[in-house]
Amino acid sequence: MRQAQSGDIVLLISLRDRKTYLRTLEHGATLHTHNGYLQHDDIIGQPYGSQICTHLGAKFYLLQPTTEELVRYIRRSSQIIFPKDSGYIIMKLGVRPGSRVLEAGTGSGGLTLAFATMVGDSGRVYSYDVREDLQSVARRNLREAGLHERVTFKLGDAADGFDETDVDALFLDMLTPWAVLDQAHAALASGGVLGCLVPTLNQLTELLGALHAHPGFAFVEAEELLLRRYKTLPARVRPEDRMVAHTGFLVFARAVVPDDASASPDLPDDDEEEQPE
Amino acid sequence: MRQAQSGDIVLLISLRDRKTYLRTLEHGATLHTHNGYLQHDDIIGQPYGSQICTHLGAKFYLLQPTTEELVRYIRRSSQIIFPKDSGYIIMKLGVRPGSRVLEAGTGSGGLTLAFATMVGDSGRVYSYDVREDLQSVARRNLREAGLHERVTFKLGDAADGFDETDVDALFLDMLTPWAVLDQAHAALASGGVLGCLVPTLNQLTELLGALHAHPGFAFVEAEELLLRRYKTLPARVRPEDRMVAHTGFLVFARAVVPDDASASPDLPDDDEEEQPE
Amino acid sequence: MRQAQSGDIVLLISLRDRKTYLRTLEHGATLHTHNGYLQHDDIIGQPYGSQICTHLGAKFYLLQPTTEELVRYIRRSSQIIFPKDSGYIIMKLGVRPGSRVLEAGTGSGGLTLAFATMVGDSGRVYSYDVREDLQSVARRNLREAGLHERVTFKLGDAADGFDETDVDALFLDMLTPWAVLDQAHAALASGGVLGCLVPTLNQLTELLGALHAHPGFAFVEAEELLLRRYKTLPARVRPEDRMVAHTGFLVFARAVVPDDASASPDLPDDDEEEQPE
Amino acid sequence: MRQAQSGDIVLLISLRDRKTYLRTLEHGATLHTHNGYLQHDDIIGQPYGSQICTHLGAKFYLLQPTTEELVRYIRRSSQIIFPKDSGYIIMKLGVRPGSRVLEAGTGSGGLTLAFATMVGDSGRVYSYDVREDLQSVARRNLREAGLHERVTFKLGDAADGFDETDVDALFLDMLTPWAVLDQAHAALASGGVLGCLVPTLNQLTELLGALHAHPGFAFVEAEELLLRRYKTLPARVRPEDRMVAHTGFLVFARAVVPDDASASPDLPDDDEEEQPE
Repeated sequence: MRQAQSGDIVLLISLRDRKTYLRTLEHGATLHTHNGYLQHDDIIGQPYGSQICTHLGAKFYLLQPTTEELVRYIRRSSQIIFPKDSGYIIMKLGVRPGSRVLEAGTGSGGLTLAFATMVGDSGRVYSYDVREDLQSVARRNLREAGLHERVTFKLGDAADGFDETDVDALFLDMLTPWAVLDQAHAALASGGVLGCLVPTLNQLTELLGALHAHPGFAFVEAEELLLRRYKTLPARVRPEDRMVAHTGFLVFARAVVPDDASASPDLPDDDEEEQPE
Repeated sequence: MRQAQSGDIVLLISLRDRKTYLRTLEHGATLHTHNGYLQHDDIIGQPYGSQICTHLGAKFYLLQPTTEELVRYIRRSSQIIFPKDSGYIIMKLGVRPGSRVLEAGTGSGGLTLAFATMVGDSGRVYSYDVREDLQSVARRNLREAGLHERVTFKLGDAADGFDETDVDALFLDMLTPWAVLDQAHAALASGGVLGCLVPTLNQLTELLGALHAHPGFAFVEAEELLLRRYKTLPARVRPEDRMVAHTGFLVFARAVVPDDASASPDLPDDDEEEQPE
Repeated sequence: MRQAQSGDIVLLISLRDRKTYLRTLEHGATLHTHNGYLQHDDIIGQPYGSQICTHLGAKFYLLQPTTEELVRYIRRSSQIIFPKDSGYIIMKLGVRPGSRVLEAGTGSGGLTLAFATMVGDSGRVYSYDVREDLQSVARRNLREAGLHERVTFKLGDAADGFDETDVDALFLDMLTPWAVLDQAHAALASGGVLGCLVPTLNQLTELLGALHAHPGFAFVEAEELLLRRYKTLPARVRPEDRMVAHTGFLVFARAVVPDDASASPDLPDDDEEEQPE
Repeated sequence: MRQAQSGDIVLLISLRDRKTYLRTLEHGATLHTHNGYLQHDDIIGQPYGSQICTHLGAKFYLLQPTTEELVRYIRRSSQIIFPKDSGYIIMKLGVRPGSRVLEAGTGSGGLTLAFATMVGDSGRVYSYDVREDLQSVARRNLREAGLHERVTFKLGDAADGFDETDVDALFLDMLTPWAVLDQAHAALASGGVLGCLVPTLNQLTELLGALHAHPGFAFVEAEELLLRRYKTLPARVRPEDRMVAHTGFLVFARAVVPDDASASPDLPDDDEEEQPE
């Protein structure tokens, strides 16, 4: 059985109330829970998936966090990008082992963490933010997840441009992404993918207008993901009564080589294609 | 600018009608489109993101496919798992560079391809299916994506158990996942993550019942992702008139070490927690 | 301008915090709000849509409640059927002026109130419940809305059958609607419409099985309505962050004259008709 | 059993392929189906809910259409307002027996028909459209449904104002509803309800801006209804693979008496109230 080792990042979940603790195990340390304490040395060597007890007898499951759990349980200094969105962003941006990915802004580092997980040791994440306080939280989250060596944090404004060029993918999580499309295009490899998240309809229409007008972007897409959770009691399975109904609109586009012959790289309008019933 | 090279897998998209071609470039080969042909040697050396022309003058964008595009445009011999689902599955299963992942069944290999992309060269995907015809399509898809060396395909029934043990994650895309929970538990590392996709409510309730009753699984979750696409014409932005409204229910659980003291490892019922308005 | 009159049911909404009061105006009465009181005689004669003040100067809008507001603001002794659902139920059941409608159970009377509104003075609503405490709340709600003369409340179990026959429509809001299909069929006019609301997947599959097997019902449909609300601040329009994600599954069927020649009145399976993309 | 009579509007549904025919029964007439003909005189006297046969032996169910079916099966010269939306609109606008309701534009008359059904003989619907061709289709639909005597059709532009005043509710289904808010306010009773349907985000933000700025409207709401249908085969219950994902955004507001003291009648911003998880 797979056992917890010193240096592992572990997730402890209370059997009584599901309260969670995310910690890196180190010899000699103590974990104080809301229901008694645990010595890290007593956790080290225990099999993952087993139950362990605090000095007060409170039971906790010992787990290795998944990427979704890492993102969900990190420290938050701002609204994070939810795992439902970051998983899809990774697919759409083609982020994979070896990718060089750029993002602005860092926020609490939820997406940074997901990117850093997927690019592996051979890839790299560059993360810009104008606010040092947010970025320092993100730095700490990445360090605790053991992923900080894959990330270069930079304090700076996307409006001033990016130091990097030829990046595979670029994600903008900022108020006015339409204002930095030239900077984004300059940083992206030709054919690279741009992603953006904006919460309001006003931002969405503004961004789509700017992307359609920009000669360096084509294949503009706007999408939204809704996650519906179900209650799982076998005798009464049903959708949860309330759900997170909105996080943001996801917008994607492809950096293309502007074509002299055509004013805009837009594909033919597909607006008439669809035949609603 | 990043240029297409021999051996690259490329995506060509027609500017006229968005028809797509997914091909691996090789010297001397010819690509026949619905609107003229292209010599691979004329594609090699062109920058990604640029437009290239067939001998009839038809224009195509030259792109490197993202993971989402790879999954979307592979050959299909059966219903694939959609990118919206596979991105989230990867987050929930904690699949990352170095992971060892098992799946049954292979199908057309859409999820296999997403897994193989993310595990990198240091990871491994084991994929079982009972149907050789389906699996041979998947093999071909993986080979063309240059990912086949990361995947071990096996012809076999999950009901007979898996050869592998201690895998990080296991995904069941089959008719009766509830019938192979023992086999799944035997293959999973302690603390590992099980994922399943089932399309019907009947399967969902059956599976949830089996998971709740099994002493080796806890943290049972059922979820569903809805992807809403928007029309992006700047003057008339709006949700698409019709959408894919259902692919399947995603069910996740954690392999735990059965606890002698408790008949079931279930956490306290959270059914009463929620306070609907 | 339309003015409030004695006997009107009115809705008062606080400009400060949107707190609402639903009252029937009568000479000499006093309305105590959370922020001062109002004499009914000072409200009578005021135009609807105007602002009125309590003795403490707190402002309230004076309105006539819509059907949606009546349903939303009645006293609740149990989960009500939401206006999004009751509006659609009225369309599907063909409830209109003159209709004779039966329902079991009454609950807090939210749907009863919507039915009673639509059937007018020439129609009639029969409402059964096994619990007197719930029904007395509903009676009071209907009386205050001035609609009680259109409703016959009955204390009784649907399992014992209904006194009425030839009703145009019948709605079952109870735990086990599948157990009273014979009773429902006996009460319905031939060709009449049956509607049901069930919250769980287990109930949904059970009910669909019973309806498909019953020779007296055809045109079985199952549907669900999701209401998404938007924040309306012009500069930041966006979907609300959280929404009511589930109230119940709506199931409809048509009472038909059993045909001797066919075991089941089911139309040909439409399961193969659809061609998902 | 309830029997079909001369003058009834009936719905015939083929048992073989669900093809539908909506007709008014009259002595001596003949109904030609895609699978044989039926004499109206042979239908008259048959019980509703029973099966009847064409001269070729093709079976049809004989039904009285519900409001939902009437709206669904009328002749369409333009996009109709779907029953899911019209049921909710009726609840939100407080349309009931006796109501005086105004709409612009008429379109194919789907919403007109729903309104005319609910207002009864004592109510009245006024329906404006600038296009005579559309309105003549709507007239024909209303006549065939036997509801034309409740409706006054007018050829005219909302921009020129409405002849009616003091109407209980007003619905705008037109391209630029924000341009006729003064006209709408002049027609509405004080406290009356305005409803609008707009399909694009651009229209939605424009309309919300105009409503918030108008001193005669308060309680601005924007909503959207999603109807999810389920396949009902008992052994394989599941959401339909594809659904109508968008019809339009519904916007509601209340006509209020402008208050001299306040520039805008808006209630305090509720934007900060919500506490997303």
